[in-house]
Amino acid sequence: MTDTVLSSANAEVKIGFGRPFVIIGERINPTGRKILAEEMKTGDYSRVESDARAQIAAGADMLDVNAGIPLADEPRILAESIRLVQSITDAPLSIDSSIVAALEAGLEAYEGKPLLNSVTGEEERLESVLPLVKKYGAAVVAISNDEAGISENPDERFAVAKKIVERAADHGIHYSNVVVDPLVMPVGAVNSAGRQVLDLVKRLREELKVNTTCGASNFSFGIPNRKGMDGVFLSMAIAAGMTSAITNPLHEEVMQSVMGANVVTGNDANCAKWLKKYRQPAEEGAARGGREGRRRRRARE
Amino acid sequence: MTDTVLSSANAEVKIGFGRPFVIIGERINPTGRKILAEEMKTGDYSRVESDARAQIAAGADMLDVNAGIPLADEPRILAESIRLVQSITDAPLSIDSSIVAALEAGLEAYEGKPLLNSVTGEEERLESVLPLVKKYGAAVVAISNDEAGISENPDERFAVAKKIVERAADHGIHYSNVVVDPLVMPVGAVNSAGRQVLDLVKRLREELKVNTTCGASNFSFGIPNRKGMDGVFLSMAIAAGMTSAITNPLHEEVMQSVMGANVVTGNDANCAKWLKKYRQPAEEGAARGGREGRRRRRARE
Repeated sequence: MTDTVLSSANAEVKIGFGRPFVIIGERINPTGRKILAEEMKTGDYSRVESDARAQIAAGADMLDVNAGIPLADEPRILAESIRLVQSITDAPLSIDSSIVAALEAGLEAYEGKPLLNSVTGEEERLESVLPLVKKYGAAVVAISNDEAGISENPDERFAVAKKIVERAADHGIHYSNVVVDPLVMPVGAVNSAGRQVLDLVKRLREELKVNTTCGASNFSFGIPNRKGMDGVFLSMAIAAGMTSAITNPLHEEVMQSVMGANVVTGNDANCAKWLKKYRQPAEEGAARGGREGRRRRRARE
Repeated sequence: MTDTVLSSANAEVKIGFGRPFVIIGERINPTGRKILAEEMKTGDYSRVESDARAQIAAGADMLDVNAGIPLADEPRILAESIRLVQSITDAPLSIDSSIVAALEAGLEAYEGKPLLNSVTGEEERLESVLPLVKKYGAAVVAISNDEAGISENPDERFAVAKKIVERAADHGIHYSNVVVDPLVMPVGAVNSAGRQVLDLVKRLREELKVNTTCGASNFSFGIPNRKGMDGVFLSMAIAAGMTSAITNPLHEEVMQSVMGANVVTGNDANCAKWLKKYRQPAEEGAARGGREGRRRRRARE
């Protein structure tokens, strides 16, 4: 059993086999969100704050924070965003950037043990990101692509993941601090995309003993009823052994799939979370009525 | 790869690894349906007919037919129901009864190769049902309970399944004609019920090489949002290797899960069925608009 432990100043989250699936909220990301990008660029973090609160309220266990805005001072904006988000939630964060200087600024600003998002199998990236992971005692998302790009061959993606885990070990980073993203292809383009992920997650778990994550919504890119498909894909990935995902907790289909999957894998003791969420308002009303009735009876006595 | 081939007079369905999941419609069953029971008892099969048509329209690949009505002439009613259903659909049927004489009457009436539902690990049941399976060249659902009842221990349920497969072989029945139901417990009562099914399906597939089926909705018995949970459970069971289920195709959540799972396992080529079902009416409207446009243009030329 491999646990990847992440923390903030006051709280801890464990990604692991035999634990509830960990949802990393993906919303704080200006890519494709013009208004958010403009606001973050001018130091207005009100939407970052409301996105953080909304995702936590919806059930996110962790939050991904990305400040990738063209021509902006990404290291500063990422650090400021992280300080802000840490001031309003105890959820551990994933520090997300393609720029190494921004990752380091985020790590400097962060309190606790974050998830660094991400390292790839590219030589230059390995040797710039892994030293940061070691220096700051972080965990890291390992994305299975390298200089050759993203292979459509799952065996090659597995080989890249293996290389990253081994290189991390060379840098003194235990495999429990490497969370592999096997890369989810759009099924509309690659018909075997789902089968590949199910098989890869199993191999990553059995052979490398690592936890896994993914950008789940890539799978449904370009096909209709995306949210429905995202839900099915996620629950099947969890059945195969996936232990976390960077996804949108505001989508009801995603939350239903993840919460249902926790029931199926036996990681929602007594179905407590499922019952809390889905017990009918009518039943709650009846329960309230019961309490009201008791109160009235007491008043009469 | 194990294929279980079922047929009617004119059509064939294969349950198998690497094939689309097979949905066996559960609706033609008077258990708990008072009106249907009364009607069937008096020879009124109008509801049997409409249930058959509705389930096929919703996407069922096969239909289960059960005529279990207390104090009724079950062999006659089952045989009549089967003749009727076969007259209106080419879908192969599952002949469902706890009474051996009714199973035999159903087999006599049936055209093609049906699924007999079911044999258990009980000695008396094994020795009365398996000879019928052999005599009529049918396939059979093997339910993993025996004289001791249903074990909560999945290893014991596996052992019962193994015993049935071996006994079937003694009767000259190939394991490809045994579809094992590992028995789904209600998760509200047995917290490990889901984990048990995922593990059992994998073992049944790898060690006994048999196809599997289940009464999927047992899992959600007693908890809220049953349909949502049925959908999640089914897609996860399919990820683990389940190849068919006796379930309700009229529930949209069930169909979405099964159709989505076929996309994820790569058994919906080019996502064709998913696209057909979920493509937006707006897009269809646009496509029609396009055709209309072309027609108008042609008319002008």
